Amino acid sequence: MSSTELDVVGVGNAIVDVLTRTDDEFLARHGLIKGAMRLIDEREAQSLYEAMAPGLETSGGSAANTMAGVASLGGRPAYIGRVKQDQLGEIFCHDLQALGVHLAVPASTIGPATARSLILVTPDAQRTMNTYLGACVDLGPEDIDEALVRRGKITYLEGYLWDRPRAKQAFLRAAQVAAAAGRQVALSLSDSFCVDRHRDSFLELVKEHVDILFANEAEVKSLYQTDSFESAAQQARAHTSLAVLTRGPRGSVLLSGSEHVEIAAEPLERLVDTTGAGDLYAAGVLFGMTHGYSLAESGRRGAIAAAEVISHYGARPEAQLAELTQRTLHPPAL
Amino acid sequence: MSSTELDVVGVGNAIVDVLTRTDDEFLARHGLIKGAMRLIDEREAQSLYEAMAPGLETSGGSAANTMAGVASLGGRPAYIGRVKQDQLGEIFCHDLQALGVHLAVPASTIGPATARSLILVTPDAQRTMNTYLGACVDLGPEDIDEALVRRGKITYLEGYLWDRPRAKQAFLRAAQVAAAAGRQVALSLSDSFCVDRHRDSFLELVKEHVDILFANEAEVKSLYQTDSFESAAQQARAHTSLAVLTRGPRGSVLLSGSEHVEIAAEPLERLVDTTGAGDLYAAGVLFGMTHGYSLAESGRRGAIAAAEVISHYGARPEAQLAELTQRTLHPPAL
Repeated sequence: MSSTELDVVGVGNAIVDVLTRTDDEFLARHGLIKGAMRLIDEREAQSLYEAMAPGLETSGGSAANTMAGVASLGGRPAYIGRVKQDQLGEIFCHDLQALGVHLAVPASTIGPATARSLILVTPDAQRTMNTYLGACVDLGPEDIDEALVRRGKITYLEGYLWDRPRAKQAFLRAAQVAAAAGRQVALSLSDSFCVDRHRDSFLELVKEHVDILFANEAEVKSLYQTDSFESAAQQARAHTSLAVLTRGPRGSVLLSGSEHVEIAAEPLERLVDTTGAGDLYAAGVLFGMTHGYSLAESGRRGAIAAAEVISHYGARPEAQLAELTQRTLHPPAL
Repeated sequence: MSSTELDVVGVGNAIVDVLTRTDDEFLARHGLIKGAMRLIDEREAQSLYEAMAPGLETSGGSAANTMAGVASLGGRPAYIGRVKQDQLGEIFCHDLQALGVHLAVPASTIGPATARSLILVTPDAQRTMNTYLGACVDLGPEDIDEALVRRGKITYLEGYLWDRPRAKQAFLRAAQVAAAAGRQVALSLSDSFCVDRHRDSFLELVKEHVDILFANEAEVKSLYQTDSFESAAQQARAHTSLAVLTRGPRGSVLLSGSEHVEIAAEPLERLVDTTGAGDLYAAGVLFGMTHGYSLAESGRRGAIAAAEVISHYGARPEAQLAELTQRTLHPPAL
């Protein structure tokens, strides 16, 4: 590959999603908290899978979904993660490569299988994730392709990496390399339970290393331990150069210095599955920010991408987002 | 498992589908015949997969889809096939077991991987299948669980098995065991190109061993080498105790002795992907015939099941067919 500049380099847990429709009763019976992401071990992954209805397998992983979105919008993303050299690993790599995402995904030949997340979608379109990290536990600082990171205008890191010590080191290595190269570092907080597990270190990270913060309302409130969205938003603004905060159907807010932009949620024909909503919102903003768009224009692209992904089953766009965005923002004259 | 009677024992190629949306131009560029099933080797599977857009993986296989349908309708099916002990094999077995299909699926520890079919769905909802048989090539007569076959009221065999000599032996073994036990033998012709490859032996098989024949219009015309559906239908009627012939949007015909029943296609809200249409039509008829329903009632169940599966992406029902059938046949009074 040439040394052309990249828009975004995503680093994350490389995961294949196993999606199944279920009901609240199933969640209750298995003690699962609706809407949350929970880490499970291999034994539990097996017993939960046995109890689940037939599934549908698609590539997932938070930062990987975001890179898929950036590619679909017409951008130039790259992805760093870890799979095993197995069938799910092959599927994961194929699906990103087919979209034109540049991959730096080492495949282990030994050790645990490619990660999978058992995702239960309830009739209210909420997703409850049960993730077996598998080969992701092998991701370490040595997997960070420094030359690749230097080529990205923005390095985008998912908070989920913070759950494993070596992935955390990989995360910090990527952030340091990006900062040293004068590039921006973006962080997605991933999940309010994840924030809860790592609040102090996330807070330190945001203050010291993060230029662009992505969080939803629950996550940013948990980070700053406040019930007030306004208060959390002001603190996030003070600690970063851009805070991008999503509020589901209430839209989103982008805060940068003295700028404050509110974006309405896109109108939806039908809400099917919220998996990937935050990931695709981030894709729209990252694409916008790396293509010279304003905060408002970038946020609108995020809203359009998020609306597309929640209108169908699965965490990656089915539509060509570049075309969908064009059609939505510039409808043909009658 | 107890020795309770089973409704249907399906024997077929155990395959995981990789579904991708594409366009006519892609088919043309790769020399693919729309609507057909083509066998490909590992090398071609790899190069075609590399050229394909991101996919969605779901369990498939013609007879397996039919057994999934019988289970969803509330019946008691079993399935005999062969996978490798790998991730796709595990997914295949999980998906049937989760529906309550009794499995007799030996998993090879060596040899080729679990079979996959690269299915290209064009905007007209037609599917073009490219199947790498993988572990299915190991299916042989020794895999036929004879006690299981004797327990099934009907043994259902897919024509695709005829493509491999040892699978053909397995097919014949199953048919002989079923016949010797006073059970019925059903055959699905699978694909008009498959009929073309094996016309003479299919014809002999139908005349000598098959009680119930499932075919679509193109397949039955190819079998009897005639352009006249009427002529082909009359020959199929003479050679079997029941001929079940589907004609896509023109509905279906069931012929048995002097009985002749025409079933209209169910009205459709939207046609998305025809993958599995014939398999699910067969499921409705097999369920009906093993539950004391008339030809007309059985055919109607086939039409309802087929309409469900073509209204979404993928070859297996998403709805609970027992409930859907009940709701369609007996709508609540206003």
